[in-house]
Amino acid sequence: MKGVMEPTRSTAELVMAGSVLHAGRLITQIENGHDEARHTMRQLMRSCGKAQLIGVTGPPGSGKSTLVAALIRQLRRAQRTVGVVAVDPSSPFSGGALLGDRDRMLEAASGDRDVFIRSLASRGAAGGLAAAVNDAVDVMDAMGKDVVIIETVGVGQGEFDIARIAHTVVLVLVPGYGDALQVMKAGITEIADVIVVNKGDLPDARTALKELKGHGFTRRGPGAGEPWNVPVIQASALRQEGIADIVAAVNEHYMFTGSSGWRQAIERGRRRAQFADVASARLRAELLTAAGQALDDGQLADPCTAAEEFVRHVMAATAREPASGSGREMEKR
Amino acid sequence: MKGVMEPTRSTAELVMAGSVLHAGRLITQIENGHDEARHTMRQLMRSCGKAQLIGVTGPPGSGKSTLVAALIRQLRRAQRTVGVVAVDPSSPFSGGALLGDRDRMLEAASGDRDVFIRSLASRGAAGGLAAAVNDAVDVMDAMGKDVVIIETVGVGQGEFDIARIAHTVVLVLVPGYGDALQVMKAGITEIADVIVVNKGDLPDARTALKELKGHGFTRRGPGAGEPWNVPVIQASALRQEGIADIVAAVNEHYMFTGSSGWRQAIERGRRRAQFADVASARLRAELLTAAGQALDDGQLADPCTAAEEFVRHVMAATAREPASGSGREMEKR
Repeated sequence: MKGVMEPTRSTAELVMAGSVLHAGRLITQIENGHDEARHTMRQLMRSCGKAQLIGVTGPPGSGKSTLVAALIRQLRRAQRTVGVVAVDPSSPFSGGALLGDRDRMLEAASGDRDVFIRSLASRGAAGGLAAAVNDAVDVMDAMGKDVVIIETVGVGQGEFDIARIAHTVVLVLVPGYGDALQVMKAGITEIADVIVVNKGDLPDARTALKELKGHGFTRRGPGAGEPWNVPVIQASALRQEGIADIVAAVNEHYMFTGSSGWRQAIERGRRRAQFADVASARLRAELLTAAGQALDDGQLADPCTAAEEFVRHVMAATAREPASGSGREMEKR
Repeated sequence: MKGVMEPTRSTAELVMAGSVLHAGRLITQIENGHDEARHTMRQLMRSCGKAQLIGVTGPPGSGKSTLVAALIRQLRRAQRTVGVVAVDPSSPFSGGALLGDRDRMLEAASGDRDVFIRSLASRGAAGGLAAAVNDAVDVMDAMGKDVVIIETVGVGQGEFDIARIAHTVVLVLVPGYGDALQVMKAGITEIADVIVVNKGDLPDARTALKELKGHGFTRRGPGAGEPWNVPVIQASALRQEGIADIVAAVNEHYMFTGSSGWRQAIERGRRRAQFADVASARLRAELLTAAGQALDDGQLADPCTAAEEFVRHVMAATAREPASGSGREMEKR
């Protein structure tokens, strides 16, 4: 109410209450490596772990952003709230010219306060992109979004990173782009839980679909359970065709991982990777100062040999002594 | 001679003798993270440090590969041997479809055994791309190449990484691509020692050239010396125009860095970054196993907090004890 003083709420509380303004600011702080952001993230962690995480990847031009827009609409019809972390392979020259149709995604979300979309630039994220993506996903999870979609363009390492974050990875292909053989050769089907042949109205769609289905991809979680048969779905994101099928397949996979112990393995793997990403990025910064002088003075061997010696030394030193201060021991395998 | 047994030579010796076959194999081993490669690299280090290192970067479509081809021809005319490390922003989907005109570069080198060109894919390099680029540059240096050109496409972090490796960074722009303002905003001119306006025959070339020259970019090494005035050069790589000017400007900058103490600072910075890159990448791998169980068991706080505690602990532990075995102390700042 106007004129009534509200009690001061922390950033974490405001984010957990769903404030888009404060969530957006927090993610900017994360990108810039602000210390305060880490403090807020610690407070948010207890509200994390509820969202369903969907990764969407595919080559440039496969229509991922249009597909994500269509997925948002479909999920909203089922009353589910949605967060999107869009990883932007930005060029320092163009500021992100590789992306064309992100506008469509924004359009799908316009005016809907239950959809929160945020881009992360592939450069500039202090502490590494994978760490920033993990944090942004946690922010949206803590905001209470039912589903968080992570979109990444198939250039570089990003598609392998989201495979470590998402519960379900949707691989978007287009007919005529490449045959099943090419996709298999690239090793990319290893991370796909659901394959979508987008632009299914194109002439080669039927061939592509037949080839991919014919191959019969399977994925297997840890343990000896049944394998997951990767569905191959024909869609047209632009015409909103096949979208319900994709959401159904994604949900089926999510249920499958939950009942087979696979989901816990994914979540553990994500937290392990997050730890290793953050620790190694911070160590890199510390090492640049700590070891620099010794290298310059020729007290160390060549940089790579010195690095190997240093790693051996660190692992030995930390195995000998427990981590002090925290009262928790760092265990060696 | 046929039939005569040669004494067995080590890979390092064969590379130092200029063997393209063995240098190529070694770089493949480096990409794959082979232990043997590290052994060979250690032997090669004593032959490193002689080559002139030129970085070439710019937005996709600026004609970098064509320009590199023209530079190779120009350098060969002056009897200088050339190595090229081309960083390929490969997509796992396409296997490198972002690149069009690398063929021109290969054409310039065809049949000339004093030119060695090698692509590195941006994914798959175990231990990080920057580390692999540094190693590949060292291999070409040890082969005895007078000049090593590092070419990278302006997508992501690569152009900032080569600025840490090369003695001289050549920034390639095209008229009409973007005005000086846009380039300045992107912060990219901070790393440019020589700016080339390629495709100088295009209609907007004169405007672009005037704008860039009008700005008067300068670069400054460490210390209080004179600043370097960044030359802006009009060229047409396709027509082989302006290429001699570029080589002259690059050599002038190389001389400048040598007389001002700047070059030693660049080389020290490169070795420091190499140490930090290799150490943090190896630590990341070690941490995934060492800390994984403790994270899973809930003995550690949330991953990011745990990572920060771990880093503090490592830095404290390594500061207390000298690195054992090597007889060299790891100094703290």
